[in-house]
Parts: sequence; C-alpha cells; structure tokens
Amino acid sequence: MKMLYNFRMQRIKLKIQYDGSDFVGWQKQRTGRSVQQEVERAIQTLTSEKANLVGSSRTDAKVHAVGQIAHFDTNSSIPPQNFKFALNDLLADDVRIVSSQKVSPKFHARFDVKKKTYVYFLCNSKIENPILRKLMCFAKYELDLGIMQQCALLFLGKHNFKGFCNSKAQVKTFERTIEACSIKKNGNVFKFSFTGNGFLQHMVRILVGTLVDVGRGKLSLQDVKEALQNGDRKKAGKTMEPQGLYLKRIYY
Amino acid sequence: MKMLYNFRMQRIKLKIQYDGSDFVGWQKQRTGRSVQQEVERAIQTLTSEKANLVGSSRTDAKVHAVGQIAHFDTNSSIPPQNFKFALNDLLADDVRIVSSQKVSPKFHARFDVKKKTYVYFLCNSKIENPILRKLMCFAKYELDLGIMQQCALLFLGKHNFKGFCNSKAQVKTFERTIEACSIKKNGNVFKFSFTGNGFLQHMVRILVGTLVDVGRGKLSLQDVKEALQNGDRKKAGKTMEPQGLYLKRIYY
Repeated sequence: MKMLYNFRMQRIKLKIQYDGSDFVGWQKQRTGRSVQQEVERAIQTLTSEKANLVGSSRTDAKVHAVGQIAHFDTNSSIPPQNFKFALNDLLADDVRIVSSQKVSPKFHARFDVKKKTYVYFLCNSKIENPILRKLMCFAKYELDLGIMQQCALLFLGKHNFKGFCNSKAQVKTFERTIEACSIKKNGNVFKFSFTGNGFLQHMVRILVGTLVDVGRGKLSLQDVKEALQNGDRKKAGKTMEPQGLYLKRIYY
Repeated sequence: MKMLYNFRMQRIKLKIQYDGSDFVGWQKQRTGRSVQQEVERAIQTLTSEKANLVGSSRTDAKVHAVGQIAHFDTNSSIPPQNFKFALNDLLADDVRIVSSQKVSPKFHARFDVKKKTYVYFLCNSKIENPILRKLMCFAKYELDLGIMQQCALLFLGKHNFKGFCNSKAQVKTFERTIEACSIKKNGNVFKFSFTGNGFLQHMVRILVGTLVDVGRGKLSLQDVKEALQNGDRKKAGKTMEPQGLYLKRIYY
C-alpha cells in the first residue's frame, strides 16, 4: 500500500526587513527588482509551488522596511519557523526574513491591518554624509522644532488627506486617522514618527515635507489648516525623498 | 604690457568622508575605484593640473572614513575654502569633502600624524540587519563585555604588534603605542574605539577580532598576553570584516 503524505495547506506570516535602495519598491513591476518578487521567487525555489505573497504595504522605490508583514499559502510540510532560515539562505542580503509563523487561513496581511507606524529620518547638515546618504534625507536649512511640533498636532485625528497624497492616487476615500505624530531631535537628526489606520500614496513623505516647509518658514500653520480643509495638494508641502522613510511596524 | 597673474603654489588640506562599500580602498590600484584616484581626478578637472593627493591613512576596501585627511599642492588661484564646494560638485555621492583649507607647505598629511582614532561597530544579532549590513559587522554569539574590557586594557601602552597585523605587512618596526581603547554597548551594538600613534595593516580589525574571540570564550586573556609577547599571529584572534571599521579622526 502506498503511503500518502498529509499535505495540508498552511498560511505563513512573514516579518520582512529590507534596504530599499536597490528595489523599485515592494510591488512586482516590469521595470525592475521588487521585494515581493524576490521573496516569491525564494518561496517558489524552496517549495516548488507557485507563490503569491500578499504584503501589508506597498512601499515605494528606495523606501526601507524594518517591519513589513506579508503572508502566503503553501502545501509544503516545512515547519513554519524554518521558512525564516531557508528563505534567508536563498535571498540577497538586502532582504531578510525576521520571523515566519503559521497563522489562521483567515489572517490577511493587508485587509487585517489595524494601524501602521512609519518613521522618517532627516539630517540637518550643510554637507550630506556619504555613509548615511541612502538611509536618511539631508536638509541644509535651519528648522524650528517648536513650530513643527505645533504643526504635527494639526495632523492628529480623522482628516481628508486629499491634499497630502500623490495626485494620481486612486482610492475610495481620502479619509485617514492619524493617532500619533511626533518629532524628536537627536544631535542634528530629526526623527518623524507617524501612526495611523492607513496612509495614502506618498502621504508620509508629503506630511514630512509639509512639516519641513513649516519648520523653515515657507508655509504657515494657517496654510496647513487650509490644505487639510480644502484638499488642495498645492497648499501642502513638497514630497520628501524616499530614502529617509522606513515602514516600522504593522499592528493587527 | 601683459598682465602676469601671481600664480603661487599653495598646499591644500582636505578633510574627507566616504562610504567605503564601493571602493577598493583609499589607495590607487589597477583593480578598481579608489578614493585617492576619485578625488585626484576631481582636482585635475577643477585645476587642469596633475594632482598628487597624499592621504593620512590607507584604508582597506569597504572601510569607511568620517575624518580622513589629505593634502595636495596647486598653482590654482581658487580660494582654499572653495575647493570643498567645487570638488563636491564633481565627486560621486559616496565621497564628500567636509573642509578645505590652506596649510603651510611644510604640512604633510601622513608624516605629521601624531595619533589616529578608529572605531568599529559590531551588532550582536542572530539575523543581519539588511539596512545596516554595509555599515557594521554582525555576530550571532553572545559576547561578555566585562572580559572584553579587561582584554582591552592589555593593549594599552607600547607593544610589539607583530601578532596583530597582516603577516604580509612590510614595516620597519611593529612597535605601536595605543593610548586609549574602549568598548561601549548601546542596545545590541558594540562600539570599539582605538586611539594610537599608528596602526599596522589590519591591526584594528585583528584587535577587534581578538576582543570578540575573548568575549565569546575562544581565547583567554593569557593567550592574548602571549600574542603580545611573542608576536605570533596565530595566537591572536581573527581578522574582522572591513565594513564595521571607520577612520574617525587624525590628530596633528
């Protein structure tokens, strides 16, 4: 009698870190190397099955992640926690799987997100530090921390963020709730932190750009209030460069 | 009557920062891109003169610098402090000139060095952080900070460091004096700092490798004492990877 293996579908949740410098972003694209495709390829090599990896967030090109979450289904009998080691052996060194675990087949990495935290690093310096150039953004001008912190308070709560996203963004609603927004200064490095139930395309980079424009006196708090009220992209600040942005944590 | 410009030779001192990741090291080599050659090329483009750039230290491939010092001579009438801006416009973004100033023609970037400080960053982590992988080294094993700090004391003062350098190193004397050696831990990152009148090839990386081998119990303090006494490279620890090493400061 032939033995039958008990192949049972299991849903695996991955926590993923990556250096976004050499990626076109999270999502698969024809134009280049994406994190999603790299990890899917590694899963396929390992399991000999076609993999469909669902990520919590579509980070842009050059944006980093220390806590991206994704899930995939597999019939493989590999113990869930072993995916971490096996996939890291197959992946390039700019992506690492920090943990792998079995989750309920009902878990969904994108739809189940309750909130997310993004951070952005900006260094106030006349000369870009060549060693950190891919890990933060640099600004030559003086920034007033106090006025930026006042501006950050305006973002708290539920708002229509139409003025704070890529004008090409196609979404059902521009309403998002920001529950925490802080700015800390350590030496000449500003760390901006945002926690909310969701973020529109480029939203964090535009929020930081707005704070920076307020901090250098190019925009007033009144301008920001108007941008929040009338959804005019031109009233908000510039879109900051991607390399200062980190997807830090996803809450379920 | 024809006006004659007063072309007077001036010696310019540069402070240079670089991300060593994509360099074969400081020194010009046929095998690839060196910092010395990149900066010399920029000077030549700027001044239309052949440039000979003398650096304080020949950092290895992948080793970073936040305070490399170098000098060159020029007949150009460019104001000394303007070299900084003009050269940065010409250089790739992994090298930056932090300052440029006129110095006495007697100043020599290498021969006048009184002491140097190098630092080394090592992260104690089971998984390499992909974002910091080119900026520090990673160790999976537990390290005993107390025993490493005891070991660091053994390095202080004047010693024959023959056991702590690349066995191919060709030098007149292996005697060097280390005046400060500290190890600090912040979270899971160890920062090793060394100040001395000079360092042999690979010496800092072997000193750190020895401290790490002591910290994980592979070498005893007695082994290190013997290596310092008999100059046996095999008694000292391994050579750590280059990407954790930073040339921090040169003292004249």
